[in-house]
Amino acid sequence: MKLIIGNKNYSSWSLRAWLAAREGGFTFEEIRIPLFIPGSRERILSHSPSGKVPCLNDHGFAVWDSLAIGEYLAEKQPALLPTDPTARAIARAVTAEMHAGFQNLRSRMPMNVRKDYTGFGHSPEVDADIARIVAIWTDCRSRFGHDGPYLFGRFSLADAAYAPVAFRFQTYGVKPEGDAGAYLATLLANPHMQDWAAAARAETESIPEEDLYG
Amino acid sequence: MKLIIGNKNYSSWSLRAWLAAREGGFTFEEIRIPLFIPGSRERILSHSPSGKVPCLNDHGFAVWDSLAIGEYLAEKQPALLPTDPTARAIARAVTAEMHAGFQNLRSRMPMNVRKDYTGFGHSPEVDADIARIVAIWTDCRSRFGHDGPYLFGRFSLADAAYAPVAFRFQTYGVKPEGDAGAYLATLLANPHMQDWAAAARAETESIPEEDLYG
Repeated sequence: MKLIIGNKNYSSWSLRAWLAAREGGFTFEEIRIPLFIPGSRERILSHSPSGKVPCLNDHGFAVWDSLAIGEYLAEKQPALLPTDPTARAIARAVTAEMHAGFQNLRSRMPMNVRKDYTGFGHSPEVDADIARIVAIWTDCRSRFGHDGPYLFGRFSLADAAYAPVAFRFQTYGVKPEGDAGAYLATLLANPHMQDWAAAARAETESIPEEDLYG
Repeated sequence: MKLIIGNKNYSSWSLRAWLAAREGGFTFEEIRIPLFIPGSRERILSHSPSGKVPCLNDHGFAVWDSLAIGEYLAEKQPALLPTDPTARAIARAVTAEMHAGFQNLRSRMPMNVRKDYTGFGHSPEVDADIARIVAIWTDCRSRFGHDGPYLFGRFSLADAAYAPVAFRFQTYGVKPEGDAGAYLATLLANPHMQDWAAAARAETESIPEEDLYG
């Protein structure tokens, strides 16, 4: 199994699939393709028909998109989704909401693991996205989080979906209180997240800020 | 089971969930909330925690987001996903790619079932989105479409995902050739799609064009 990812410092979609694969206990080869440099699009297209990362290659066929990769891994490792059908449905709802939404947060507070931009990036629209995320975290933790520290107790695809938000909150100094704050600390302390962050800090490529925030 | 949807003329996300529910053979009550009028956001929030349509309410709990609703329905009616694991993974990949992507097509060619805007909406970015969609349709039909006229043969969630694109192509006069064109005709001839289009034409509310294309 091969997982094609972008820069660990920047590629939030890559982190989702990588973290799900790590937490699912899969053994996989990691192929890192730095983004926004000459030739990167061609290199990605040689693996991924959508031209985007992440892409999983298993037994010679490509599964692209972090959400589809997550479902593919969960078919092999069902612990990646909650067992209870209601919890599983809500886990997929909050994952899909992240997948298609929060455009303001994503454009104004792009993932940039190794930086400290405390206080930057806010706008009324970004703050509304943050409030909705905090509401989701608080609701999932109180309704479904009883047998562990993650959104649905044990680690699930929903946590993988929000993992890049944890790095964003760290970079831009967003500090939720209460259950949401405790959950943020859980994500940032996750050993695989710490591995990812260390690798992000060790990367040498930079995307110009005008492209990242453009 | 209740499905909360927006205007049939405009709400592409609603169509995805509604068509999956219809094709899955589910009996459901339809609650239509016209969008962009005073009070519509409050009415939606009384059903859907994300404040967005569609939202499914089953036995008193809400499942929101068209993609999560699709997976929820497919757990009850497995025929909504391909049986073969590879085909199922690709069906989820193309569904997720639609869910998070094609921003240019979505903003420049919004769904507007009852209008004819042939020739409008094009730009290089929109045309690149259209080319990628045509490539997906052609690839799925040739690799997986042998036992029926849909992307994976029988109707699946992937067809629900691309159903609003069929109405967009009709409205803006986009006419793909070959297998993609035949697949477009299949979607537009689907009896549930025709029901939806007839209901869209019968709606009396209009969203001002400056909001729709803003």
